[in-house]
Amino acid sequence: MRYELYYWPSNQGRGEFVRLALEEAAADYVDVGRLPEADGGGVPAILKLMNSPEIRTPPFAPPFLKAGNLIIGQTANILMYIGAHHGLAPADEAGRLWTHQLQLSVTDFVKEIHDTHHPVGAAFYYEDQKAEAKRYTENFLKLRTTKFLNYFESVLARNGGQHLVGGALTYADLSLFQLVAGLRYAFPRAMARLERDLPRAVALHDAVAKRPRIAAYLASSRRMPFDEKGVFRRYPDLDE
Amino acid sequence: MRYELYYWPSNQGRGEFVRLALEEAAADYVDVGRLPEADGGGVPAILKLMNSPEIRTPPFAPPFLKAGNLIIGQTANILMYIGAHHGLAPADEAGRLWTHQLQLSVTDFVKEIHDTHHPVGAAFYYEDQKAEAKRYTENFLKLRTTKFLNYFESVLARNGGQHLVGGALTYADLSLFQLVAGLRYAFPRAMARLERDLPRAVALHDAVAKRPRIAAYLASSRRMPFDEKGVFRRYPDLDE
Repeated sequence: MRYELYYWPSNQGRGEFVRLALEEAAADYVDVGRLPEADGGGVPAILKLMNSPEIRTPPFAPPFLKAGNLIIGQTANILMYIGAHHGLAPADEAGRLWTHQLQLSVTDFVKEIHDTHHPVGAAFYYEDQKAEAKRYTENFLKLRTTKFLNYFESVLARNGGQHLVGGALTYADLSLFQLVAGLRYAFPRAMARLERDLPRAVALHDAVAKRPRIAAYLASSRRMPFDEKGVFRRYPDLDE
Repeated sequence: MRYELYYWPSNQGRGEFVRLALEEAAADYVDVGRLPEADGGGVPAILKLMNSPEIRTPPFAPPFLKAGNLIIGQTANILMYIGAHHGLAPADEAGRLWTHQLQLSVTDFVKEIHDTHHPVGAAFYYEDQKAEAKRYTENFLKLRTTKFLNYFESVLARNGGQHLVGGALTYADLSLFQLVAGLRYAFPRAMARLERDLPRAVALHDAVAKRPRIAAYLASSRRMPFDEKGVFRRYPDLDE
């Protein structure tokens, strides 16, 4: 089965967590939003599916994954599906729930990261909420990044250091890779300081980057660069 | 098996979504945070479990549910577990994923509702972020409540109007009840306006409130009142 991933083509965004899992699974997928509109892709294809009145299970927002007759929305939910079907999560109930629980904390963290540049609302430009963003991000870097990253570091330590869950790679490990990579891009000064206390998370990031399928993906044009349109944005004013 | 729910005793908060499911399921549970400290309950019991270095699967934050040997964190993850074990979600994969997907949109909405009074960060008092809260909430009431509530209304309409998923009650229905009840408490003026376009969501709220186990729960002392310590807070300045 060829999966269809639907996500805005302009930036990595939340879709990137799904792409990393599809790539590691060597799954057959098409990134519909990045296809030319002439080939039935692009933003119109996303909106057409989202807004179709015939769909009984409409997604609230991208990303969503078409898997045969299923349309699966919400990043963590998509990852739970991919994890179950491609060996990227334990098969037993306890392991499945624990992997998903970690992913939901990733979801919470991603929302807080997004809000560093949009604390008032996504409807306003960053330039129109710079004062609020500065105040939000000071608190975020002081308290929240530390709390989330130390949590994941602690989970790694309790599990022997190599993986968040059990003895093998899961989608949660891939997401932690993306968090470290993205935070390094957005907040290089803060991360240089924070990483001193995160040896296991940094080692996991490096190990994921070297996995053959991930390395090939990162070197390909399928991996978009970080920039100031996605979740992780580098605004030097905020990284102090 | 007697479940143990761990959540802060001071307010309904995110724990309330779990309580509603446990009550509808007539599950045997103890609300540990609300037990007297002398009986091994209260905040110390929550912190003790969260901070124990012996736990291999530590929760990031309350609520979490102890189910035998499992410690399950993240509200939506707990509900997925209760749904599977107590008939509050379909058993097939498509139905399970769809119910959970809806719940994850509830999670996103709850975070945005929380941020109406804490847009800069939970570390600051509301009184220290009133200006930001006003600006955030204006945009939230204009764009975000409409988007989320119309989405759930549309899902109800596509499914025949009675339930969000299939032909029976799920944990997602219980959560939509709580959203309507909470938003009515926090933003009575805005909700009076919005509800005109939400006949199915309002009818579902009323039907859930009349279910015998939910009605008994709502009338009991186990149901804490809404107040200005939880997710849904009534600050008249914001409801304009």
